[in-house]
Amino acid sequence: ANTSPARLALTAFGLAIFLFTGLLSLPAASVDGSVTPLHQALFTAVSSVCVTGLTVVSTAAHWTFFGQLVILVGIFVGGLGTLTLASILALMVSKRLGVRGKLIAQEAMNAGRLGEVGTLLRIVITTSVVIEAFLALALIPRFIILGENFWMAVWHGVFYSISSFNNAGFTPHSDGIVPYETDLWILVPLMVGVFFGSLGFPVVLVLQQNGLNWKKWNLHAKLTIQVSLILLVAGAALWGLMEWDNTRTIANMSLGDKITHSIFASVMTRSGGFNLVDQGQMEPTTRLLSDALMFAGGGSASTAGGIKVTTVAVMFLAIAAEARGDADVKVYGRTIPQGTMRVAISVIVAGATLVAVSALLLLQISGASLDRVLFETISAFATVGLGTNLSAELPPSGVYVLSVLMFAGRIGTITLASALALRQRSQLYHYPEERPIIG
Amino acid sequence: ANTSPARLALTAFGLAIFLFTGLLSLPAASVDGSVTPLHQALFTAVSSVCVTGLTVVSTAAHWTFFGQLVILVGIFVGGLGTLTLASILALMVSKRLGVRGKLIAQEAMNAGRLGEVGTLLRIVITTSVVIEAFLALALIPRFIILGENFWMAVWHGVFYSISSFNNAGFTPHSDGIVPYETDLWILVPLMVGVFFGSLGFPVVLVLQQNGLNWKKWNLHAKLTIQVSLILLVAGAALWGLMEWDNTRTIANMSLGDKITHSIFASVMTRSGGFNLVDQGQMEPTTRLLSDALMFAGGGSASTAGGIKVTTVAVMFLAIAAEARGDADVKVYGRTIPQGTMRVAISVIVAGATLVAVSALLLLQISGASLDRVLFETISAFATVGLGTNLSAELPPSGVYVLSVLMFAGRIGTITLASALALRQRSQLYHYPEERPIIG
Ligand SMILES: [K+]
Ligand SMILES: [K+]
Repeated sequence: ANTSPARLALTAFGLAIFLFTGLLSLPAASVDGSVTPLHQALFTAVSSVCVTGLTVVSTAAHWTFFGQLVILVGIFVGGLGTLTLASILALMVSKRLGVRGKLIAQEAMNAGRLGEVGTLLRIVITTSVVIEAFLALALIPRFIILGENFWMAVWHGVFYSISSFNNAGFTPHSDGIVPYETDLWILVPLMVGVFFGSLGFPVVLVLQQNGLNWKKWNLHAKLTIQVSLILLVAGAALWGLMEWDNTRTIANMSLGDKITHSIFASVMTRSGGFNLVDQGQMEPTTRLLSDALMFAGGGSASTAGGIKVTTVAVMFLAIAAEARGDADVKVYGRTIPQGTMRVAISVIVAGATLVAVSALLLLQISGASLDRVLFETISAFATVGLGTNLSAELPPSGVYVLSVLMFAGRIGTITLASALALRQRSQLYHYPEERPIIG
Repeated sequence: ANTSPARLALTAFGLAIFLFTGLLSLPAASVDGSVTPLHQALFTAVSSVCVTGLTVVSTAAHWTFFGQLVILVGIFVGGLGTLTLASILALMVSKRLGVRGKLIAQEAMNAGRLGEVGTLLRIVITTSVVIEAFLALALIPRFIILGENFWMAVWHGVFYSISSFNNAGFTPHSDGIVPYETDLWILVPLMVGVFFGSLGFPVVLVLQQNGLNWKKWNLHAKLTIQVSLILLVAGAALWGLMEWDNTRTIANMSLGDKITHSIFASVMTRSGGFNLVDQGQMEPTTRLLSDALMFAGGGSASTAGGIKVTTVAVMFLAIAAEARGDADVKVYGRTIPQGTMRVAISVIVAGATLVAVSALLLLQISGASLDRVLFETISAFATVGLGTNLSAELPPSGVYVLSVLMFAGRIGTITLASALALRQRSQLYHYPEERPIIG
């Protein structure tokens, strides 16, 4: 019973990827009417179902409308699957941890009414569709004003709303969203969609029930929103600072556009994956900053990837407690259990190991610079989708490595954390303590 | 009283660096008889006192015999200072942690007789000098056989013995040790010196008292030696695998020489810093491997740098316990206290942050590739001294950044860990637990 959540996740996502690879391999999916090579079809299927957004072929140029529809359905199904699966696992953890744990989990999930998987799935779908509908209604008029015909505008509006709320980062336009780089009517809905999508389902529920009444939020919502905002603001400030005089990106823009670009870029590292500037033309320092922001990722039980902001929060709170000399890790009048911190460390180390091993393999396979390899690797792991187009340059072996990494990044952190929490057992006896010297 | 260990360390090392910078600035220290520019004199002083081994000017070509002697004395003083300071701090931690803590620390330091700082210093000096004398006696005959005159051979023997046991990595030869790349009579003493130097004083004492009687070793010695050996063997195997077909390094060598090179390279990442092959000609993957090995570093209270092998061990044991579902972190019939794990995490995150910020600055200042910048940065942080000669290419601002990093890497991990351990206090009240969702 302990291994079932992991097995469930692997099976569900594995089957979905198998199915979508098949659909994308159909001649009807590619513009030239031929069968797309397996590594490209598989990569695109994994990238859409895992809502990563990296591409080996141009979404606009290679795929037909049918192919693009398959990708969009893949994003929709993958996004819902991620939200549902992560929520189910969070609930299972809470049930396993007993009465106190159950109360805690009800706080964390803020949902006594979420006892049933069916109910959970219904709420996830309703919430997602409602938010996506709002986003699409905001975007469609703009595409019409910009001269697209009605059905094309609807298609683009729906595509971008699903792609942004699910943090997928796929675009149906050949130049992506670069043509709209000063169009706030388009950029703001995309940012709002990505930001709310990246908070995660448990936080969205808390916001839905308590609005901005901070005191009524549970600890999970407080930590998620606080860290997300800190990363957003600090990321935008540093991004702007680093790119300010870069003539290949924003140096020649107006002050307003520079600020828009900085905020947009920072939001998108949270796992959105849309880009306004060529990521290969940014300063190497900016790519390193993006690496850090992407690795951190978004909220738990969201469509965002990475190690998750609460993981970062728990680690920093533990270090702050250590610096103050406190035995308990305290925040907002609550103590964070020791076990939670060990789960956080395990998730961080597993993520770092996955990224390091993949980067080593890709460095060997591609011969590209560490800078580019690391950026593409972390982007794949954290299902972000930003990149310097390295994926498209890789031989099939490299494409398979990135496919596995996207899959592991998507399923790994979610199942690892819950599997660890579910395995926690009580001790029958204790060994005497002995303290090795540290540092 | 809590801040005194950190202040003591900062003051002692700051004064030593000030003094050695002054000595190296003297016209008598440089071959051309001029005053060496401040950034170069300071960098060399920091590099020698912190036993790092990075250079901005050639040790053999720029410095006179007097200058080289100053560097050697800097290494000797810096090495002893590091050992003494780290040992004093470990003792202070043990005293502060009360009766149980005292017993634990006596296990860890394996020394009831080490109560007095004076005694401690005497034992550190005696042990170091005796080991260094053995190494010098092994090396001097070889230099004589190779045709050096007696006093030159003595000078080289003494220099290499001090440089290796203190994990300094400085060489008095203009080509370093490359001319001896197949000379096991020289390479083996260097490897032995670096390896034993990197284990740390508490482990050397345990070995001195109990020999190879594994059962009598304390937990600290077991973990240190075990992890050191794992890193040594795994590092050598991976290094050899990655460089096997690299014609710029070892591809054209005999099998024996390939194995020697692999083992030597792996030992030297532990903080030794001697190199047989041009680090800039290695595969990028090999530099990434070296980055990881260097960051891990050597044993606590040793002249090696990095986050230390016990820190790595504690983190992995905690993750293993989490994977098994155990509440206690157990190893060799002992439980590792929760506080120790939090200190370990703090040391790792502080080290990673220091490296990341320095790498960002140097990326900006130098315009060099991330690959080279990261390698030089981690080498400086972990006081290793391997590099692609980036230090010598940097403008003064970059040289100062690396100087600060070498200093922080040397003093930082030692004082941080003890300062944290000394601040641990008991709680008067506890907040209720609440568990955020992780991963
Ligand atoms: K994405
Ligand atoms: K060194």
